[in-house]
Amino acid sequence: MSAEHPGEFALIQEFFASGFPDSADTRLGVGDDASLIALPAGYELAQSIDTQVAGIHFPATAPAALIAQRALRCAASDLAAMGAEPQGFHLALTLPAAEHGWLAEFAAGLRDAAQELELALLGGDTTSGPLLVITLQVQGRVPAGQALLRSGARAGDEVWVSDTIGGAALALPQVLADPASFTGLARRYYLPQVHTPLGIALRGVASACMDISDGLLQDAGHIARRSQVSLQLAAELIPTVVARSDSRWLQCLNGGDDYQLLFTAPVSAQRRLNALQQQFSGLTRIGHVTAAGDSPVLLTDHGALLPLPAQGGYQHFH
Amino acid sequence: MSAEHPGEFALIQEFFASGFPDSADTRLGVGDDASLIALPAGYELAQSIDTQVAGIHFPATAPAALIAQRALRCAASDLAAMGAEPQGFHLALTLPAAEHGWLAEFAAGLRDAAQELELALLGGDTTSGPLLVITLQVQGRVPAGQALLRSGARAGDEVWVSDTIGGAALALPQVLADPASFTGLARRYYLPQVHTPLGIALRGVASACMDISDGLLQDAGHIARRSQVSLQLAAELIPTVVARSDSRWLQCLNGGDDYQLLFTAPVSAQRRLNALQQQFSGLTRIGHVTAAGDSPVLLTDHGALLPLPAQGGYQHFH
Repeated sequence: MSAEHPGEFALIQEFFASGFPDSADTRLGVGDDASLIALPAGYELAQSIDTQVAGIHFPATAPAALIAQRALRCAASDLAAMGAEPQGFHLALTLPAAEHGWLAEFAAGLRDAAQELELALLGGDTTSGPLLVITLQVQGRVPAGQALLRSGARAGDEVWVSDTIGGAALALPQVLADPASFTGLARRYYLPQVHTPLGIALRGVASACMDISDGLLQDAGHIARRSQVSLQLAAELIPTVVARSDSRWLQCLNGGDDYQLLFTAPVSAQRRLNALQQQFSGLTRIGHVTAAGDSPVLLTDHGALLPLPAQGGYQHFH
Repeated sequence: MSAEHPGEFALIQEFFASGFPDSADTRLGVGDDASLIALPAGYELAQSIDTQVAGIHFPATAPAALIAQRALRCAASDLAAMGAEPQGFHLALTLPAAEHGWLAEFAAGLRDAAQELELALLGGDTTSGPLLVITLQVQGRVPAGQALLRSGARAGDEVWVSDTIGGAALALPQVLADPASFTGLARRYYLPQVHTPLGIALRGVASACMDISDGLLQDAGHIARRSQVSLQLAAELIPTVVARSDSRWLQCLNGGDDYQLLFTAPVSAQRRLNALQQQFSGLTRIGHVTAAGDSPVLLTDHGALLPLPAQGGYQHFH
């Protein structure tokens, strides 16, 4: 780890030194001033950094293993959205106290997620502080020039989503009322699926891609702005966890936390996407791309324009 | 940035979108799900992550520009200690509120440090939280197999330090009493020198290297343990900011925050090190490496063993 302290060092040895997967690219892992990785010829390195703060991004009293699981999954989702193959991560952990049982649980959850996601623990930093803050830097490799960007959507493309949205958003009342409950929709909140295989399969197919972390309507706007187009979404096509008649339907469109992939693809890719639907059964076409208009995102109901709901996705500093 | 929110997006555009240096390795910077970098053939990527918490690692009321300067310098020091050429960084910033003046100052300090250190801003994440937490992931490139590790010290090697230690530790009372004061030793605390040119010059010369972040005596133990040797340090040779007769002398040996490089080199490298002393005038030989003994670090006074001071370096969770 980058700054070792005796207490910290013992802590790392005990909880984070073993059980994590290896990466063929790792040249030096935990324990020196920095980690070292190689990158095979013809590859680029995709990197993302994500912070989760107790009481803001997850309930402070949630089970430690689930806090770790969710944090690494949310971070790794950015790699899936780039079409990258997961490689490794660095962990920066700020903790109020080094409580043995909590740390053992946290490390176990992190190990389980890292094994499933095939992310090697490359290094980290543990610090003491008044509240729990988890920052994860994740990285993966992608063939040069093949990463899925937000900026490639073109008028005429179709808009797709990887699977049903809204489950994690609708789980929030249950999660907040009983952070330890882990049934039904709470599973979608704590263990969002990371769409690594789909992201890789979308290389050369999708024209733009991102993961939905702040809500479909809000995140669609990011692709629209980066691509200088508009995204027109058809309400009747969007797969949501509750029906349109349900009062919580709008929450599904505005809620993040599902980490589904939102992507665009040219019409010419439709045959390949239909084939991919055999492997990824949730894949759903939900709209199309138009030339940039007054609004980056339009919502329609069988072709008739719907007013965009005022309620936005999750926003910091607003 | 990895998870964009409208408020966050505007904030990033305003404060972090321009003025940072470029890196030839950058393929995609701020604004997508992840950044993308290339790595030239024959190079490895060195990466480190460092967290600084307000009130723990720096005074919460310190000038924002100095908080940023110090945070990036402390993080980049790990790259110097590896002999890496700086390339870029990711910023994870947790903030109690997006106070315009504070952010403008913070961004200005970060830009100044990034320009001097030649670190491109590759991406980041800004989140709201009850207190200021800064996590910086820094990265640099180093020719494959040439990184300076902690594990290469061998019995018979000599021990060196890049320059005088203790200035930042002795500045602490002044910094805590008046965080905005920026005279004398406080400069060493807020603007530690990052020894990038020395680190690069030490490739093929040093057998082991690290930066002193937690105090000379403590950090020497890390090289000793990783290399399975003992480091014998000569009190009369160690360059400290106050003389041995000063009551604060021990604080110099136990205080971190100077970010000097501590390294070992074989005797056969002495001619090259003498030549390097022309360029790096602070370079000082302070002891030698022995076979591993009962204690990883020994302190002597003209050859006579001194008891190791009980006061340790800065320790988290102790």
